Amino acid sequence: MRKSKKERQVLLQETIASTPFITDEELAEKFQVSIQTIRLDRLELSIPELRERIKHVAEKKLDDEVKSLPIDEVIGEIIDLQLDESAISILEINKEHVFSRNQIARGHHLFAQANSLAVAVINDELALTAKANIRFTRQVKETERVVAKARVEQTDSDKRRTTVEVNSYVGSELVFSGVFDMYRSNPTQR
Amino acid sequence: MRKSKKERQVLLQETIASTPFITDEELAEKFQVSIQTIRLDRLELSIPELRERIKHVAEKKLDDEVKSLPIDEVIGEIIDLQLDESAISILEINKEHVFSRNQIARGHHLFAQANSLAVAVINDELALTAKANIRFTRQVKETERVVAKARVEQTDSDKRRTTVEVNSYVGSELVFSGVFDMYRSNPTQR
Repeated sequence: MRKSKKERQVLLQETIASTPFITDEELAEKFQVSIQTIRLDRLELSIPELRERIKHVAEKKLDDEVKSLPIDEVIGEIIDLQLDESAISILEINKEHVFSRNQIARGHHLFAQANSLAVAVINDELALTAKANIRFTRQVKETERVVAKARVEQTDSDKRRTTVEVNSYVGSELVFSGVFDMYRSNPTQR
Repeated sequence: MRKSKKERQVLLQETIASTPFITDEELAEKFQVSIQTIRLDRLELSIPELRERIKHVAEKKLDDEVKSLPIDEVIGEIIDLQLDESAISILEINKEHVFSRNQIARGHHLFAQANSLAVAVINDELALTAKANIRFTRQVKETERVVAKARVEQTDSDKRRTTVEVNSYVGSELVFSGVFDMYRSNPTQR
C-alpha cells in the first residue's frame, strides 16, 4: 500500500539521513512515486539535491590527511577519512568504466576504488596490498554511484600487517565486498 | 663458480625456451655476466631480442578468438588463447601503472590484467566475475613486463560457474596469483 505524503516524507528524511548518497531515482523506486514527487518532497523538507549533498560532504575538511599516497592517486573521491580507522569514497561509474557490450562496470574499477581506499586509510608512508579476498555481489551499471566504506580491523599478532574491510554500495545495495591484507612499513600505534 | 661460455650458452638456450619473455637484464643477472655478454651469446646462438620474440608470438594467429569481450578491452596483450582452457597475456608496466612515490606497480593494474584474462578465456558471450582470491607475491617495478597465465579449472557441479586460475610472472618470479570464480550465461561444453 502506498504511504501517505506525511508518512513518506518522514521515511524520506530517515532514508536520506542513513544513506545520504541515494539518488532521487532510487528514492522514487523505493517509495513507488514519481521522481517529480521526490523532488517536491525534498523541496518541502529543504533537503538539497544529491549533487549538493555530496559537494557539502566533500567540502568538509577531512579529519585526517592521506599519508600513504598522493590524494590524486586515490581512485574515486575520498569524502571521509580517519587514519587507521575508517574511510569513505565515491566513484561515479562512467562510460570509461563499463564493458562496451552491456554497460556493466568492469570489476577492476570497483577493485581499484576499494583497494586504493584500503591503501589510503593506512597511517603510514608505505602501504602495500599483500592479498585480498573479494566478492562482486551485484552488477553495477553506467551512471550509478558507488560508495565504498573501509574499516580497519587491526590484528594484534603482527603490527606490520593491517586488515582492511571494504564494502561498496549503490544506494543501500551491497555491490562489492573485499578484505584486504596490507603491509605497512611502521607498526601501527593502536 | 661462473660457468664456461659453452655451459652458459646451453643454459641460456634452455632458459629462453622455457621463459621466452625473460629480458637480457634478467639473464645477465641470472648468469652473473654483463648484458653485453648476453647480447653476444644471443647473436652467436641466433636468438632474436626480446622485442622480436614477443612480436613473433603476437603475430602468430591466436588459435581461438576472444568471445566474451572486444579484444581491445583486454588489459595487456593476449598472445595465446585456447577458449575454456588457457590464455596468456603480457602487460608492460609503465609510468601510468605505478605509484608516483616509489615506482611500484599499483595492485589494481595487475588485478585488471589477470581479471580481464580470466574473462577473455571464457567461451561465452557473457562472463562476469563473482569472486576472487588474490595474492601479490612480489613488488613489480616500472619497465618490468608481467606475463599472466590463465588456466581454466572446470568444476563439474555447476556448469554455469567456471574457476580460472591466473598466475603472473616477471621473468620466472611469481608476482601475482589469483583464483577467479566466473559466471557465464551458457553452460560449458566440456
